Amino acid sequence: MYDVDAVREDFPVLKEVVYLDSTATTQTPVPAVEAMVEYFYRYAGNHGRGAHRLARETTNRYEDARETVAHFLNADPSKTVFTKNTTEGINLIANSYPWEAGDHIVTTMLEHHSNLLPWLRLQKKGIDVTVIKPDREGIIDPRMIENALTDRTKLIAVTHISNVFGSVQNVSRITKLARKNGVKILVDGAQSAGHVPVNIKTLGCDFFATAGHKGLLGPQGTGVLYIKDPEVMESASLGGGTVSDVRGHEYTLEPSPTCFEAGTPNIPGVIGLGKAVEYVKKIGISEIEKHEAELSRQAAKRLSELDHVEVYGPENRAGIVPFNVTGLHAHDVALILDQTRKICVRSGHHCAIPVTRFLEVESTVRASFALYNTKEEVDILVKAVDALKALVS
Amino acid sequence: MYDVDAVREDFPVLKEVVYLDSTATTQTPVPAVEAMVEYFYRYAGNHGRGAHRLARETTNRYEDARETVAHFLNADPSKTVFTKNTTEGINLIANSYPWEAGDHIVTTMLEHHSNLLPWLRLQKKGIDVTVIKPDREGIIDPRMIENALTDRTKLIAVTHISNVFGSVQNVSRITKLARKNGVKILVDGAQSAGHVPVNIKTLGCDFFATAGHKGLLGPQGTGVLYIKDPEVMESASLGGGTVSDVRGHEYTLEPSPTCFEAGTPNIPGVIGLGKAVEYVKKIGISEIEKHEAELSRQAAKRLSELDHVEVYGPENRAGIVPFNVTGLHAHDVALILDQTRKICVRSGHHCAIPVTRFLEVESTVRASFALYNTKEEVDILVKAVDALKALVS
Repeated sequence: MYDVDAVREDFPVLKEVVYLDSTATTQTPVPAVEAMVEYFYRYAGNHGRGAHRLARETTNRYEDARETVAHFLNADPSKTVFTKNTTEGINLIANSYPWEAGDHIVTTMLEHHSNLLPWLRLQKKGIDVTVIKPDREGIIDPRMIENALTDRTKLIAVTHISNVFGSVQNVSRITKLARKNGVKILVDGAQSAGHVPVNIKTLGCDFFATAGHKGLLGPQGTGVLYIKDPEVMESASLGGGTVSDVRGHEYTLEPSPTCFEAGTPNIPGVIGLGKAVEYVKKIGISEIEKHEAELSRQAAKRLSELDHVEVYGPENRAGIVPFNVTGLHAHDVALILDQTRKICVRSGHHCAIPVTRFLEVESTVRASFALYNTKEEVDILVKAVDALKALVS
Repeated sequence: MYDVDAVREDFPVLKEVVYLDSTATTQTPVPAVEAMVEYFYRYAGNHGRGAHRLARETTNRYEDARETVAHFLNADPSKTVFTKNTTEGINLIANSYPWEAGDHIVTTMLEHHSNLLPWLRLQKKGIDVTVIKPDREGIIDPRMIENALTDRTKLIAVTHISNVFGSVQNVSRITKLARKNGVKILVDGAQSAGHVPVNIKTLGCDFFATAGHKGLLGPQGTGVLYIKDPEVMESASLGGGTVSDVRGHEYTLEPSPTCFEAGTPNIPGVIGLGKAVEYVKKIGISEIEKHEAELSRQAAKRLSELDHVEVYGPENRAGIVPFNVTGLHAHDVALILDQTRKICVRSGHHCAIPVTRFLEVESTVRASFALYNTKEEVDILVKAVDALKALVS
C-alpha cells in the first residue's frame, strides 16, 4: 500500500478542506501543475505547425502525453484522441458516425446526461433509442441489453461506473454480447479510468470516452476518446490541423488522431494530463482501486447504520457513496457539511436526472473518494452526518 | 506608449528566443499563469455544480472571467460562450444552426481552414457554398460578397484579419450589407480580438468566434463564441450542464450560455484567459494595435527592399508579415532563422491552402508581432533574412 500522507503533500488544497467530491473533479497533483507552468514559461508554442524550436518542443511534449495516456489505457496512440471532456468525446461519436434513419441505439437510464442526450438528440434524425432500466442498486443486467437488440441496432452506449451509485457495470460481458451481435459499443469511462484498471485492448470496445480531470488527475478541459475504427467516420468538427489538402470545394482528411483534433488543442492541459497519468501509474492503479473501494465501502456501511440516513448503491462499489438524510434537502446537507466541517460533497441530480428520479428522489448527497483520501476523512464525514440527527429529530 | 521592456518581463521565454509567431499562438503573461496555479492549489472544483466552497469559488471566478471577456469585446455575457478554440466555435454554429437543403452560404478564399471546411462540409446536407476570391494583397471587396448573395443566402462567413496576409477586412461594411439583405454574418476574429479594437455591439454581427490563445494572451485550449440570437438553435453538443430537465425521451435546455458549454469546461484556462484579458485591457488595445502595426509595417518595408525577398499583403497591415526567399523553401528559411538567430517564425500554408495556392506558392514564411515585440527584434529578423542572400546567390 502506498503512503497516502505523502501523496497528500502533492495536493495543497487538501490541507484546507475535506475534499470528497472527486467524482465531479479530482484535484491535480503538483508535478502536473509544474509541468504546465514549465510549458508556459519555457517552451510554449503551437502544436504540430512549426519548424521553430518552441513549436517542436511543444509538439514533442504533447505527443509524449498521448503515448503516456494511450499506454496507460492499453490503447493504440493513433486511435487515442484528446478532447475537452468526456462529453465532447461522446458527442463527437454521436455527430460523426454515419447513422441512418431507422438505426437503433441501446443505452441505459443509469447514464450521465452526457451519455444519454447525444443519443436522444439523434431521434430527430430518425434514430430509435431504447433506454434500459437498472436495478435499485444501479446495476444493469446485460441480458436486458441483449434482449433489447434488434436487427437495426447499431450501438450500445453504457457507463462503466455509475456516477450516481458507484456501481461497476459488467462492461466486459456487455462488450462481448455486442461483438456477438455485430453491434458497436461505446463505454463511458468518465468514472473508471484512473480509478480501476482499464485495458481497452482486452475490453475490445469500439469507443471509450473519458475525462482527464477525474481519475486521471489531469486539469479540467481535457478528455480522451478512443476510436477503434477511426476510418469509418469523418469528424463533425473540421478546421486547422484536420486536413492534408483543400482543392476547390473538396478536402482530404489527415489520418487519426489528427483529423479528430480540430484547431489548437488544450496543449498545457494535455501536457499536465500526461504528467498526472505518470503520477497515477507510479502509485499503481490496483492499489488506488483497493484504497478507494475500502474507503467508500467503510463510509457506506457506517452511514447506513445511522437511522436518519439512507445510502444508495451496491455493497461492492467504486469510490462513490450517495445518500440522503431524512427530512433534509441534499443541498442543505452539503451546505451544512461545508460550513461546519469544511467537508466538500456534491448534492443534486449529478447530471443524471432520469436515474435520480428512478430512486424516487429529486437529489442525493454524494461523497466520493480518490487516491488521496483517508480513513480519518471518512470518520469526519460520518461524525458530521451523524450530528445532523439533531436537526431532523 | 507603454513600456515594452517592462511588458517583456511578464513573458519569460522572450529572454530565450526572438518570438515572431504570435499569429499561431501568443505567449501567456505571468499574471495569467499565476492565476491558474492559484486555482489548482487553492480552490479547484467543478463549475456550476456544487454547494461546497471550492465549487462556489470556482464558479464565481469562471463567471468573472466571462464578464471580463464579454465586457472587453462589448458583448452580452449571456451570449458569450467559452469554447476550446475558434474552430470549435465555428463548427458549433455550422453544426447547430437550423440549415435547410438549398440554403446558401458565402465565404471567402481568404479563410483559415477552420472558417472554410465547416461550410464546405455542409454541402453534404445540400447547402450551396460560394467562395469569394480576394485581391492579390488579401483584401475582399465587399461588393463581390454582395453580388454573390441570392434569395437563398443564409450566412456570410468572413475573416476579420487574414492570418496569411495580415490584411484587415472591412467587416463593418460587410456586416451592414448582410443586415441590409437579411443575411446572418459570422466574423472569424481569431486574428483580431486583442490585436485591434473589437466592439461586437457596434459591429452588429450575428456570430463572432475567436481564440483565447492569440491576441487575448490566454492559454491554448480556450476560445470565445458570441451568439447574437442563441435561442434560434439547439447546440449540437449536449450533456452535463446543458439541460434543466430530462423526462423519458425528452429534454429541456438551459438558457445561453450554459446550453452551449457541454461537460466540464477548461476552467483553469478560462480563469487564465480572464486574467490575460485584464492584462491586455490595462495596456490598452489602441496602443497595442499601433505598436504591432508599426513593427509589421517596418518589417514588411525593410524585407521588401531585399532583392531576394518577396513580401505579400497590403501596406496597411496588422502584425503579420508573410514572405518568401527566392530559391529557398519556406521551411528551410524558418529552420535557418531558428538555428542561426533563435528566431521563431512560422512556415507553410498556415492552415489556408486555397489562398496560399492563389498566391501561386505552396508556402510562405510568416513573421508576426504581438504587444511584446520590439524594433530590435525587427532588426534581428531583417538582418538574418538579409544574410540568406549568401545561400541563394
